Amino acid sequence: MHTVYWEDGKVKMIDQRLLPAEFTIAEFDSVEGVARSIREMYVRGAPAIGAAAAYAMALAGFHSQATDRESLLADLRAAKATLDAARPTAVNLAWATARLLEVIEQSALTDMDAIRTALLAEAEALANEDVEINRRMGYHGAAVIPDGANVIHHCNTGGLATVDFGTALGVIFACHEQGKKIHVWVDETRPRLQGARLTAWELMQAKIPMHLIADNAAGYLMYSGKVDAVLFGADRVAANGDVANKIGTYKLAVVAQENGIPVYCVAPTSTVDLSLESGDQIPIEERGPEEVTQIGDRPIAPEGVPVYNPAFDITPHRYLTGIVTEEGVCYPPFTQSLRDAVTLGQTHMEERRQARHIGEGA
Amino acid sequence: MHTVYWEDGKVKMIDQRLLPAEFTIAEFDSVEGVARSIREMYVRGAPAIGAAAAYAMALAGFHSQATDRESLLADLRAAKATLDAARPTAVNLAWATARLLEVIEQSALTDMDAIRTALLAEAEALANEDVEINRRMGYHGAAVIPDGANVIHHCNTGGLATVDFGTALGVIFACHEQGKKIHVWVDETRPRLQGARLTAWELMQAKIPMHLIADNAAGYLMYSGKVDAVLFGADRVAANGDVANKIGTYKLAVVAQENGIPVYCVAPTSTVDLSLESGDQIPIEERGPEEVTQIGDRPIAPEGVPVYNPAFDITPHRYLTGIVTEEGVCYPPFTQSLRDAVTLGQTHMEERRQARHIGEGA
Repeated sequence: MHTVYWEDGKVKMIDQRLLPAEFTIAEFDSVEGVARSIREMYVRGAPAIGAAAAYAMALAGFHSQATDRESLLADLRAAKATLDAARPTAVNLAWATARLLEVIEQSALTDMDAIRTALLAEAEALANEDVEINRRMGYHGAAVIPDGANVIHHCNTGGLATVDFGTALGVIFACHEQGKKIHVWVDETRPRLQGARLTAWELMQAKIPMHLIADNAAGYLMYSGKVDAVLFGADRVAANGDVANKIGTYKLAVVAQENGIPVYCVAPTSTVDLSLESGDQIPIEERGPEEVTQIGDRPIAPEGVPVYNPAFDITPHRYLTGIVTEEGVCYPPFTQSLRDAVTLGQTHMEERRQARHIGEGA
Repeated sequence: MHTVYWEDGKVKMIDQRLLPAEFTIAEFDSVEGVARSIREMYVRGAPAIGAAAAYAMALAGFHSQATDRESLLADLRAAKATLDAARPTAVNLAWATARLLEVIEQSALTDMDAIRTALLAEAEALANEDVEINRRMGYHGAAVIPDGANVIHHCNTGGLATVDFGTALGVIFACHEQGKKIHVWVDETRPRLQGARLTAWELMQAKIPMHLIADNAAGYLMYSGKVDAVLFGADRVAANGDVANKIGTYKLAVVAQENGIPVYCVAPTSTVDLSLESGDQIPIEERGPEEVTQIGDRPIAPEGVPVYNPAFDITPHRYLTGIVTEEGVCYPPFTQSLRDAVTLGQTHMEERRQARHIGEGA
């Protein structure tokens, strides 16, 4: 099943806050509701957030009272602003809402129902493409992971972080599908424990050998020669290859390089933001103290303790061996290789859109 | 108050498993009980473990049925074996039990009561010296921390990890007492959260400015130029300066060096094990999976997930700026500076012992 999908005029999604203890589907019928689901992390992971936002743009179209194209476009722009503000770091959010807006802006459609249909079709296409892109990315990545590898994986980048299959975890799934022996050190990923709650759950379901570790144990494993590669996703990649990703990624990458271990970021070209020269321009979200001071409603620190809780960090490109995209593995100099991959990605997206229109007889 | 102390013929200690939610004193009247308190981490921190074990050796003396010196020494050796086996990594445990055994072995005492009195006196001396040593260490360390410094501190090394005052946290207390402005980034220290539970609590009580962070955030802080020094304690220091300390120390030290940030280990000379050439010879304790999979009794990972949970890691000496001891700050080459500090420490211990005997009119 997909992590986020459209059904009966609503955006539905797995409520990831409760996993693995509870598996429930949350549903939202307003742009504000979906924005809240992103902010409160019912749905997380850059590609999954993008898909949720795309469906929310379709919701905006269906709920709009507009009777002409320009008014409807104004409503869509307002919806985009609401959604883009939900979380600042992942670029896929703004990328997805822009894609939905542009498909109408670039069309000549004036009929309200035709516009609504086009919006939903584009959101569905974006979601389905995410799965296809992830599979391609997974197989490109699997080519650089040797048989028998021990891999450290950070955060959750699996089916749950995307529409399905995953980015960095997709590489691991692809290795497994190819019959490679692979063992995963799953770091728990404090403060929100996406590794312990979500990645461990996905790997156990897939019967892929793994051990859960505290984030602090990753260094000792690398030092002890028990790690062959480090894999993670991205929330935004700057033009020079600097990566914004879940807090803790930077430490992993530095220690991996110190130990001569290859480091791969796995992210679709939609995560690359060519408008930013370097990672220092990527906004880093700070989240509430309770993520650190409480597990559920159980306090684990003294009451009233001051907390600093950045959700992401920046890993400079010099620590990366490669960036795996759906168009292939980009190597340094990333400024060139990423630009080439993004151009290819846009070309392929456009080809798919045209193929869809031919298929529709448009 | 002292973290561990002798009262009414019993070893009493703050039960650190329950802090900061509950403050309770646990008491033990047998060697096995104290060994359990160390294993189950009622008491933790290398110096505090040493003091608890010293008092337990006195307990062994008082509970022994022996009627002659040799039989009593045999009972003490058995008690030492039980205590030393409680936790493998910290050397202070075996150092303290050896010190209690030797004080009797090297004496000519044959009267049972005189031996018991000598054991308790030595345990009390060891505990009191720990506080005095910590204060000296704190002031040596404070000399290398600039006014206005932002310091990352790992695990708990404060009054609770020692008999009182602390090692690395003692340096921070000394800075504060000297009127230096200091701000501490307290990492929570998964899996057992000694930073969130104990260090945050100690610093809040002392009104020293601090923020609690997830362990994963330390790298981003260093990368962002918000850290001036990294401080931690040690469970064992090898002759070459390699340090065994709480899991996560190695990652911190590597990332600090990468960012040009000074790294200080703070440990009394009793933590230095000159019998081991390098850190690779230090045994690393692995603890149970529930430390990672549960907070209290609340599961935070899928049931049955395999876990790897090393309690300590090794930080090679090349990542250390200095090792702060009660005899001064040791700098590279550590093989020489540590040996000198240990020799001085032993001389001072012997001087204190003789001064005590003169004071007693012995």
